[in-house]
Amino acid sequence: MDELALIDRLRLIAIDPAARGLDDDVAVIGDLVLTHDMIAEGVHFLESDPPASVGWKLVTVNLSDLAAKGAEPIAALMGFTIGRDSEWDEKFVEGVAAACEAYSLALVGGDTIALPADAPRVFGLTAVGRGGGPVPSRSGGKPGDALWVVGFLGDAAAGLALLKEDAEAEGPLVEAYRRPVPQLAAGKQLAPYAAAMMDISDGLLLDASRLCAASGCGAAIRLDMLPLSRAFIAERGADRRARIAAATGGDDYALLAALDPETDPLGLPLPSGTTIARIGTLSADGPTLSLVSGGSPVPLPKRLGFEH
Amino acid sequence: MDELALIDRLRLIAIDPAARGLDDDVAVIGDLVLTHDMIAEGVHFLESDPPASVGWKLVTVNLSDLAAKGAEPIAALMGFTIGRDSEWDEKFVEGVAAACEAYSLALVGGDTIALPADAPRVFGLTAVGRGGGPVPSRSGGKPGDALWVVGFLGDAAAGLALLKEDAEAEGPLVEAYRRPVPQLAAGKQLAPYAAAMMDISDGLLLDASRLCAASGCGAAIRLDMLPLSRAFIAERGADRRARIAAATGGDDYALLAALDPETDPLGLPLPSGTTIARIGTLSADGPTLSLVSGGSPVPLPKRLGFEH
Repeated sequence: MDELALIDRLRLIAIDPAARGLDDDVAVIGDLVLTHDMIAEGVHFLESDPPASVGWKLVTVNLSDLAAKGAEPIAALMGFTIGRDSEWDEKFVEGVAAACEAYSLALVGGDTIALPADAPRVFGLTAVGRGGGPVPSRSGGKPGDALWVVGFLGDAAAGLALLKEDAEAEGPLVEAYRRPVPQLAAGKQLAPYAAAMMDISDGLLLDASRLCAASGCGAAIRLDMLPLSRAFIAERGADRRARIAAATGGDDYALLAALDPETDPLGLPLPSGTTIARIGTLSADGPTLSLVSGGSPVPLPKRLGFEH
Repeated sequence: MDELALIDRLRLIAIDPAARGLDDDVAVIGDLVLTHDMIAEGVHFLESDPPASVGWKLVTVNLSDLAAKGAEPIAALMGFTIGRDSEWDEKFVEGVAAACEAYSLALVGGDTIALPADAPRVFGLTAVGRGGGPVPSRSGGKPGDALWVVGFLGDAAAGLALLKEDAEAEGPLVEAYRRPVPQLAAGKQLAPYAAAMMDISDGLLLDASRLCAASGCGAAIRLDMLPLSRAFIAERGADRRARIAAATGGDDYALLAALDPETDPLGLPLPSGTTIARIGTLSADGPTLSLVSGGSPVPLPKRLGFEH
C-alpha cells in the first residue's frame, strides 16, 4: 500500500464535513480552523540548521495554512521530542517562542516525549485559528478566475541552494528559507473574495496543479508575471530558467488565490509592502497546467515542485 | 536545560487561560477540549507490537484525556509517518480506523510525512472533544475530597510483563496493554461532580502525586481498595507486593477523580459493568502521598510510576 492508497484508506474514516475529504490543508470545526504539520530532521530540516530557525519554522508553516484560510491564529499544541542535546532543544524552544510571540499564538498544550538515542528529531504542531467568515477551500476555483500570488517565489529554494554550497551562507535568501513569514494579514483580506485559496509550500506549479485538480479546472500560468525578489534576481537572474526554478522550488509559504476576475485585490487594504501579482487564469482545460512566457507556450518541467 | 526547565520555558509562552498553565493534559477553547499525544517506537510501543494495536492506542490514549475532562470526542488530526514497511502502515491505519469508528471520532486532517530510513516511527494525534459543562482540571481537589478510580489498575503493566517474557503471550492482560478502553461514558457522568479529574496513564501513585501537587493537597491511599481484575489476581495475586505493582505500573487509562465526600458516584447512571472504587482521601498534608494497608502505614515505593 503506497502513500496515496493509505491516504485513500484514511479518507474512508474522514467522512465528517469538517474533514473536507482530506483535500484541504485544514479542518473546520464551527468557526475554528485547525491544521497539523510535522517536520522531521533530515527531511524538512538539516541537523546543521540553527535550532531557533527550526522552531520558528515549525510554527510558521502551520500559520501559513491558517493564512491561506483567512483565519486568525489563536492557539497551538506542540508535540515536542526532547533530544540528545539540551542546548539545541533550548534554542529550538526559543524559536518556537519567538514565532508564537510574533503572531500572538498562545501555546496551550501538547506533549513532550523522549526519542531513542540517535533517532532523528520529529516535531508536530497543531495550530488553531478563528475564521472570519466562509473559509476558502482548494476546490472552489472556476474557469475564468484570476490566479494571484501573495509573496515572493523562489527565495527559500535559492537560500537552501546557497546553504548546500556553503553552510555559513547568509543574507535575505537564506533568511527566507529559515524564517518564513506567514501571510496572515493578506490572507485575512483576501479570504472573503477567494473562490479558492491555499498556501504555496511545495512549489507554485505543484500546488497550482493541486488547486486545479480539486477545482476541476486547468490553469494558464504566465512565467513573466511571477513575483521575484531583488535578492532572487541578483542571485539567479530573471530568465526562463530562473523563473522555472522559482515556480518549482518550494518552501515559499506564499499564498495562491483564485479570485473572480472582477475583483481587484490591489484595492483591498493589504499591509504595506505586500507583494501581490496576477500570475495566470483558471481555464476549462481539465486539470492541466500550461505555461506561457513572452506570449509563447513553454513546456512544463518534469518536476513541478517538492514531493515529500 | 533539562526537560523540566524546558517545560518551564514553554510555560512562559503558555500564558493564555486556555493553556491551564500546561499543568493539565488538555487545553480548553470555548466549549472545545483539545489534547495532543505523541508515541514513539522503542519508547511507547515495541516494533514487535501488532501495528493495529499501535494505531488503536494512538487514538485511545488521547481519548482517555478527553474522558477525564468529561468531553465527547468529535474530531482528530493525525501526524502520520509513512515507514519502511507498507504492510505495517496499512495495519496501523486499520487500528486507527477501528478506534475512530468505535468512539465516533471523525478524522478531519493532519499530515503525512516520510522519515529517514531506519528512523523509529513517531506518531502524533490531536483529539478535539466537546465539553458538557465545566471542565475539571487537576487542580481543584480539596482536603477531605474522596479519591475514586474508574477502571482496573495494573492489568496493562502485567500484560506488558507477560509479553516481555513471551512475545506470543495472549489473554485479557495483554489485551489491556494493547487495546486500552477510554472511560468516556463514566468520565462524562463524573465530570459535573469532580473537583479534580485526570486519567491514570503513568501509574496511580505518580498520577495521584501530580493531582496532589496541582491541588496543593496530600492524599492517603488505601492499597486494600485498589480495583484489581480477576485476570490480574490470577496472575499476580492480591498481596501487598501485587498491589504496589498495580499502583505503579502505568498504561492503565483509568480515571482518577476527587469528589466531594457527600457525592456518591454509585448513584450515577454509569455504564453497566463500570468498575469504580473509592481508594482514598485527599488530605491537608502538603503534596505528599501516604499508603495504608490493613489499617497500617506502608512505605511509599521509590518508583511511583512510569516516568517517560
